[in-house]
Amino acid sequence: MPVRNLNGAGAQFVRNAWYAAAWPDELVAGKPLGCTMLSEPVVLYRRADGIPAALEDRCVHRSMPLSLGRVRGDFIECGYHGLQYDCTGACVRIPGQQAIPRMARVRSYPAVEQDGFVWVWMGDTGCADPAKITRFPWMTRPGWQHTKLHARIACNYQLIVDNLLDLSHLAFVHSTTVGSIELADAAIVKTERTQDGVRTSRWTLDVPPARTYAQFGRYECNVDRWQLSDFHAPCTLVIRNGSAKAGTGASEGRSGEQAWEFIVCHGVTPETDRTTSYFWAVTHDFGADDAEATAEFHRQCQQVIGEDIAVFTAQQRMLDLKPDAPLIDIRYDQGPKEARRIVARLLADERSDPASAGEKHHVPA
Amino acid sequence: MPVRNLNGAGAQFVRNAWYAAAWPDELVAGKPLGCTMLSEPVVLYRRADGIPAALEDRCVHRSMPLSLGRVRGDFIECGYHGLQYDCTGACVRIPGQQAIPRMARVRSYPAVEQDGFVWVWMGDTGCADPAKITRFPWMTRPGWQHTKLHARIACNYQLIVDNLLDLSHLAFVHSTTVGSIELADAAIVKTERTQDGVRTSRWTLDVPPARTYAQFGRYECNVDRWQLSDFHAPCTLVIRNGSAKAGTGASEGRSGEQAWEFIVCHGVTPETDRTTSYFWAVTHDFGADDAEATAEFHRQCQQVIGEDIAVFTAQQRMLDLKPDAPLIDIRYDQGPKEARRIVARLLADERSDPASAGEKHHVPA
Amino acid sequence: MPVRNLNGAGAQFVRNAWYAAAWPDELVAGKPLGCTMLSEPVVLYRRADGIPAALEDRCVHRSMPLSLGRVRGDFIECGYHGLQYDCTGACVRIPGQQAIPRMARVRSYPAVEQDGFVWVWMGDTGCADPAKITRFPWMTRPGWQHTKLHARIACNYQLIVDNLLDLSHLAFVHSTTVGSIELADAAIVKTERTQDGVRTSRWTLDVPPARTYAQFGRYECNVDRWQLSDFHAPCTLVIRNGSAKAGTGASEGRSGEQAWEFIVCHGVTPETDRTTSYFWAVTHDFGADDAEATAEFHRQCQQVIGEDIAVFTAQQRMLDLKPDAPLIDIRYDQGPKEARRIVARLLADERSDPASAGEKHHVPA
Repeated sequence: MPVRNLNGAGAQFVRNAWYAAAWPDELVAGKPLGCTMLSEPVVLYRRADGIPAALEDRCVHRSMPLSLGRVRGDFIECGYHGLQYDCTGACVRIPGQQAIPRMARVRSYPAVEQDGFVWVWMGDTGCADPAKITRFPWMTRPGWQHTKLHARIACNYQLIVDNLLDLSHLAFVHSTTVGSIELADAAIVKTERTQDGVRTSRWTLDVPPARTYAQFGRYECNVDRWQLSDFHAPCTLVIRNGSAKAGTGASEGRSGEQAWEFIVCHGVTPETDRTTSYFWAVTHDFGADDAEATAEFHRQCQQVIGEDIAVFTAQQRMLDLKPDAPLIDIRYDQGPKEARRIVARLLADERSDPASAGEKHHVPA
Repeated sequence: MPVRNLNGAGAQFVRNAWYAAAWPDELVAGKPLGCTMLSEPVVLYRRADGIPAALEDRCVHRSMPLSLGRVRGDFIECGYHGLQYDCTGACVRIPGQQAIPRMARVRSYPAVEQDGFVWVWMGDTGCADPAKITRFPWMTRPGWQHTKLHARIACNYQLIVDNLLDLSHLAFVHSTTVGSIELADAAIVKTERTQDGVRTSRWTLDVPPARTYAQFGRYECNVDRWQLSDFHAPCTLVIRNGSAKAGTGASEGRSGEQAWEFIVCHGVTPETDRTTSYFWAVTHDFGADDAEATAEFHRQCQQVIGEDIAVFTAQQRMLDLKPDAPLIDIRYDQGPKEARRIVARLLADERSDPASAGEKHHVPA
Repeated sequence: MPVRNLNGAGAQFVRNAWYAAAWPDELVAGKPLGCTMLSEPVVLYRRADGIPAALEDRCVHRSMPLSLGRVRGDFIECGYHGLQYDCTGACVRIPGQQAIPRMARVRSYPAVEQDGFVWVWMGDTGCADPAKITRFPWMTRPGWQHTKLHARIACNYQLIVDNLLDLSHLAFVHSTTVGSIELADAAIVKTERTQDGVRTSRWTLDVPPARTYAQFGRYECNVDRWQLSDFHAPCTLVIRNGSAKAGTGASEGRSGEQAWEFIVCHGVTPETDRTTSYFWAVTHDFGADDAEATAEFHRQCQQVIGEDIAVFTAQQRMLDLKPDAPLIDIRYDQGPKEARRIVARLLADERSDPASAGEKHHVPA
């Protein structure tokens, strides 16, 4: 059946989830950072102890964005008339008056810094369990390096998730770096449900290495290549990409000879129905001894993400032009379709139990 | 009660009023000037005698803006097919034909040049009394100088009026020039209805001078500081700002010692619900002997207006995002709220007597 | 009666027509070219034999524009997942699978290259008769030269047609080059229905030549001047512009002395209700021996089209602001109004027989 409403127009977002909100180095001490998440204005700042705080980015007085104000110790001060808020969202000071109305408070969101990301929980505060945050340990592991990008992309976030669960597109979108035609023609793909999402495992056996693989894996032979995408609903992914000498057992669970791998961490945070705040980092533990080769590998990775972004925005432009055009599925769409089903289920669950979605504040018993 | 619809979306504008339309030096002889006022396209031009004329900026033939045409003596000629209009809006020439249809006329608006502003009356022509124009005599008074700005601001005009009737914001928005924290914490504010608007009188006594005051008022002592905002509904304001040595009687009606003052003239003309044509001029009679100091004072003033514009556009952005978010009033909002009530009353009056609002032309008895 | 809805908002477009789609030199071998025609996304490309093909610019899989893909011989390949389409719009390859769903096809449009234009038929495929394409033989005729422009104009296409059927505007819009005041004041205009449109014939007799005419026609005397606009509904025009020595019989069908002429070819293709893809070329057979004079003539022509574009976009801006403002007709509007009537009739015919408008594919008996 054709997937309609690919662009998710009018869709609600899953609220009970940890979303990537910033790189830690974007959130400098003393400087508030405004962003949009799930169509809500959010301001991030660091408390005096450096821990991130996240509030609604709108002063209750006259709708000034708090992100244009100042950090004052643990508080954030509106830049217009000086109202101050603590990290629970309570207004704690109104210049010129003693009494502070009970209603003078903005929404606060749980925020956590972990694995080189700042995470924000957009749903029911009482359900915010940091243990549920997707782990990206390679971001901060000694001996590992990464190249990264945070960009606002003019597309619905699900177009990005689709892309990452069907890596046959490398053959066409990234044919000059990480792609080769065999990834589309000869891949063996397995799609599995996982505890919190879906995994697509792609194996392409005994094929010439794509340019990037040949160059940095130093292959002069055919390879067995893997692309393992783990989608953690609704909005994070880990993708392991690698290869080993063909026929040396990598696809049967052995380590394989001359194995080479990089791992990509994705935070795909909806800003609005048509824009996404996309966090992307390629991590790897090779090349620590060769700065020049690492720089070239990073350059190729950045080219790849640029090519993907061009696809996302072109798709969104066409979906806006013809929102009701029917779509045809192909064999490789099993993973993306399963991901959309999981997200739809989460949305339906939240709709049937709105309290859990954070529309009101949870009062722990 | 929270003020809803702060952004005035969908609001009508008060029509029976004189609105700032241009600086005289923007309206050069022989060159039409197009603008938008109260959501209407208006073209200004100078007649042969130099007096300003204002017409609807739309040729009745094929909707070409007349502002892209030419001034021909007392007439304005459409740049497309050459239709000419006199300053009453009557079409007086159609190339290629003798007969001119009775309907071939555009709306005309009374226009007056006074006190360094060009004013246009947008309502019932028969009610256009130039004596009702807000006076800004300091703009053209010998010995007085000014620095000025005309800018299109991406906000509803009432956000600007709010700003000018609550000057506690200087403590936060302009803290490096004309503001100090005492303006928010220690000011004594009085709000009064006036014949055509509202006046807020702010006195902050025995406080250190803000940077700009210390520098140009040459204080080495505390000051008594005044901020007197006169709002003339719906869209003009005069603000007197000054100080004198603390305790020398300025707040009791005496002239005070080492008194120093500047007067700001504001024309806040709605273009649309979300954009404003803002005229702002700081006038003063000090510094005539010191060009360098005057230049520095003007630079600080221009910094101040830039800071305000950043606030207005940020508020409007947030109001567009969350138009129905509740707002909390604070003690200093009495003046702004009174101004909004007066404007709402004027609008209601015009709605109940549409004839007076200029929807049709008034025929004097 | 005033013409309402001048901007054609919400209007359908005439589908059963050949529309200018590209210059041949814009459509280079191997490179797809995306455009919007009649609110539809269209991709043009050259087949292996160089003949143009035109398809819906949207892959049926995930809405990727095919124009961002690659030409593969006679096929076009989607740049995302590699689906290939032949020039009938049928999907002929899906990487990774053998079966191709019957529904996997995009719309195709007849396309023809002729007279220096690429033409696309947007309606019922079975009715696409290349013999109905407006001929512009001067574009490719030996000894003839031209200067041309293809631009996306922010206006409804009918504003351009209006302009070209009432050339009195030259007196005002192009007064420094091809216009003189007599074109508006003294022209004798005849308006006739033709087989597929309307012709306005304008003769302005015994008048001083406009600057461009004096310069390139080398007149030192008055001229008889002609402006003959042939509108072929819905969207092409040929305009013959020329002059001869006054009183030498040009207006009576003789060739006239010192006759001088240039012919302008117009393809006015609607992109959307408010944007037009405009193809314009001035052709002439004089000046072959004088490159410098030709360059100057071309410069003046390009100035003229720039002046027209400024008019179109200003009109559209005003129509958007005041879509329901009444309009007054003048004597010279007979041609433009007749053209609008013809287009309205064609639209009504297609509405009453939707099958013919290409909403479904025609099956020849």
